[in-house]
Amino acid sequence: MVKLVAFYRHPEDVDEFERRYRDEHMPLVWKMPGLRKVEVCRFAGQPGGGRPPYHMIAELYFDSEVDLQASMRSPEGRAAADALMRFAGHIVSFAYGEVRQESAR
Amino acid sequence: MVKLVAFYRHPEDVDEFERRYRDEHMPLVWKMPGLRKVEVCRFAGQPGGGRPPYHMIAELYFDSEVDLQASMRSPEGRAAADALMRFAGHIVSFAYGEVRQESAR
Repeated sequence: MVKLVAFYRHPEDVDEFERRYRDEHMPLVWKMPGLRKVEVCRFAGQPGGGRPPYHMIAELYFDSEVDLQASMRSPEGRAAADALMRFAGHIVSFAYGEVRQESAR
Repeated sequence: MVKLVAFYRHPEDVDEFERRYRDEHMPLVWKMPGLRKVEVCRFAGQPGGGRPPYHMIAELYFDSEVDLQASMRSPEGRAAADALMRFAGHIVSFAYGEVRQESAR
């Protein structure tokens, strides 16, 4: 599997960010072709204390890099990205790569 | 579920980093109590081109924040962290938080 990771720095207005993320961005994300899973993690802290480096990360899973690229280039992918950029373009960064998953022990 | 995310900026020597991560750090990670799953993603790129912001992220999953905190404070958790800090302390950041997972459609 391959995933696209979106790193969200801390928004100035968390409630406003969360509202637009949920109402304007996610409904379009679900329409993206080939999307297998979305995992979102909102950070509560960092070990040893202090503010975590990000508000949250969101991870979009696809079967392959070809599928991921095709999905991002699709009309649905562009619409989801456009909606996101309107309210979070200044706080989001992206990276994608192969997922290696292992069970403990 | 709760996860601890380790963000690894680009090492100066990738091969050396990967070798020590595999041989010195991961065998100790597997001994950490309460660890449910480890997912590692090495980044191949970012949408639109350019160098991804990180070399990789590693995500350690636990049943709860209590379990995660106890595991990090355990002798096994400290040993794993100490080993990591010896070769990656200058390129790693951490954050932990609740995982929200959804299946597409």
